[in-house]
Amino acid sequence: MKVIVDCHGADLGVPAAVEGALLALSGSPTLEVVLCGRREEIKACLDGKNYDSARLSIADAGEPVTNDDTPTVAVRRKKDSSMVRALTMLGEGGGDAVVSAGNTGALLVGVNILVKCVKGVKRATMASVVTSLKGTPTLIADMGANVDCKPEMLFAFAVMGSEYMRRALDVDSPKVALLSNGREKEKGNALNHAAYELLEKGTFDFIGNVEPTDLMTGEADVIVTDGFAGNMTIKAYEGMGKAMMSVIKEGIMSGGVKSKLGYLLLKDVLRQVKKKLSADEVGGAVFLGARGVVVKTHGASTAESYRKSVLNAEELAKRNIPKAMEEGMAKYEYSND
Amino acid sequence: MKVIVDCHGADLGVPAAVEGALLALSGSPTLEVVLCGRREEIKACLDGKNYDSARLSIADAGEPVTNDDTPTVAVRRKKDSSMVRALTMLGEGGGDAVVSAGNTGALLVGVNILVKCVKGVKRATMASVVTSLKGTPTLIADMGANVDCKPEMLFAFAVMGSEYMRRALDVDSPKVALLSNGREKEKGNALNHAAYELLEKGTFDFIGNVEPTDLMTGEADVIVTDGFAGNMTIKAYEGMGKAMMSVIKEGIMSGGVKSKLGYLLLKDVLRQVKKKLSADEVGGAVFLGARGVVVKTHGASTAESYRKSVLNAEELAKRNIPKAMEEGMAKYEYSND
Repeated sequence: MKVIVDCHGADLGVPAAVEGALLALSGSPTLEVVLCGRREEIKACLDGKNYDSARLSIADAGEPVTNDDTPTVAVRRKKDSSMVRALTMLGEGGGDAVVSAGNTGALLVGVNILVKCVKGVKRATMASVVTSLKGTPTLIADMGANVDCKPEMLFAFAVMGSEYMRRALDVDSPKVALLSNGREKEKGNALNHAAYELLEKGTFDFIGNVEPTDLMTGEADVIVTDGFAGNMTIKAYEGMGKAMMSVIKEGIMSGGVKSKLGYLLLKDVLRQVKKKLSADEVGGAVFLGARGVVVKTHGASTAESYRKSVLNAEELAKRNIPKAMEEGMAKYEYSND
Repeated sequence: MKVIVDCHGADLGVPAAVEGALLALSGSPTLEVVLCGRREEIKACLDGKNYDSARLSIADAGEPVTNDDTPTVAVRRKKDSSMVRALTMLGEGGGDAVVSAGNTGALLVGVNILVKCVKGVKRATMASVVTSLKGTPTLIADMGANVDCKPEMLFAFAVMGSEYMRRALDVDSPKVALLSNGREKEKGNALNHAAYELLEKGTFDFIGNVEPTDLMTGEADVIVTDGFAGNMTIKAYEGMGKAMMSVIKEGIMSGGVKSKLGYLLLKDVLRQVKKKLSADEVGGAVFLGARGVVVKTHGASTAESYRKSVLNAEELAKRNIPKAMEEGMAKYEYSND
């Protein structure tokens, strides 16, 4: 399988992307890698490295997309950037998957316009697989790509999310839940009420509402939400972690050694929970519904994050996840228009 | 000032409400209390207690509203309940404030229908005052009463929230922020974008977006949000606390004494943060925009919670907060219809 790596966009720059791609290459004999980015920078990173050159190529690119770029403008104007080139190549059949650490908004726009969506899907959704406290994977869609959703979109997230769990992660009969502000069917806003009605009609295992407090319990395997609520929930989790660290720091000011030990312990617990909440642990977030595999790795990605994401992308391409999404959606008349 | 106490609806039942009211009575010489509920139960709680009987009366009531009741049905059918009687009494001028620990949804419906709203306000909002990590009060509106909002409603929350901070809590020039999933003006969903445009036109100090991570930093004095997002955020904070407790508990299973000490410490930190996030610390949540003072005390209220809430309600009535809300809204043409 041919994975195109967008080498720009991560905080650690081109070296992390290239090193991660090389690690992935040596980890999978079936993998072919296209390093997309400024040729000279990539070549400098490859210099002196040992790798199977028959399975590696470079696709030259110009000025990269940055996080300050407005998504639509970036995709329209920076046609020469590594992100736009990588997505265009995928859309034109020049590869099986793309891995990028770049601007999430631009990536979403690029996926929808350049890679396009499978039949029955109008807009791709960014899904994140987190690790529950039980150790099981939980897919959350949407995580912030689509902030304004219609009920039909949440239904499509449920269909694609459960197909993904089955086909990519071998979860036999994934439980699907709707993220709401209460367990009862009556809870939630107008969008949730309408989505609930649709979800009840799905052939997947819909278990009703779960609350933000249930995000990590592993009770549901797929949690659907509009991107605004999904993003707000994750950011609030982060906020609580920060608040607790702040309270214990203040305790150290007024307290003694006990607090200092507690600070270190709390820091470790926080690190563990953050790791579980991070999609990078399982190889990046995925754009479901696109006609090709597109994996988003974190902006703070290291070579190890790239390695995981590239191998994950190859595996998803081998399992033909885009096709699985199309087959899942074909069962329903709804379109997430 | 005459404060009507809805004696039913709290987990600890009538005794906590009555004891709290008596504590408040002995704490404020200007306070008059009406205990609304089943006369015999209230009398049993008063038996043998020492109090100024000239400032205490009982308003008999029938079957109470429960948390299982559908809000509109409860208000329409249980006309004899302590909650409906208390709100009706307030609406008819038979008192200056109501304190209730009952069904939040029913309370909101009751406030809108029986107490009614001031001019310029179509629906009351439930505002919660939390304590920031700096120790300053932060008002959050809406906290879950109005799950579907129009931009004009969020604007009204901002107007009323800043008037409340000024008139009830003596904060001179409160900073107002919009809760969103990013700092930049472009972040947020369609509701937030439209609300942002309106908020920029207000005469209050609008500082832009804050994220769920900023909820407790004290950067904003008033945070406006629709009730769905507000409720989700608070529940996610709770979820992160639970997740961290769960991870450390698992650590104890596999670890030693250090983890156990850490567990106790984490528990204490969590308790401190929860206390800061609880509106009960400052005397309950308040329904802004109602024509009378209505304070919601927590379902788990103790006598001490009731004492604080009753004294808070009296103070808010003395400061004529409903009038302040009306005056605030009179400056604008928008109505939160």
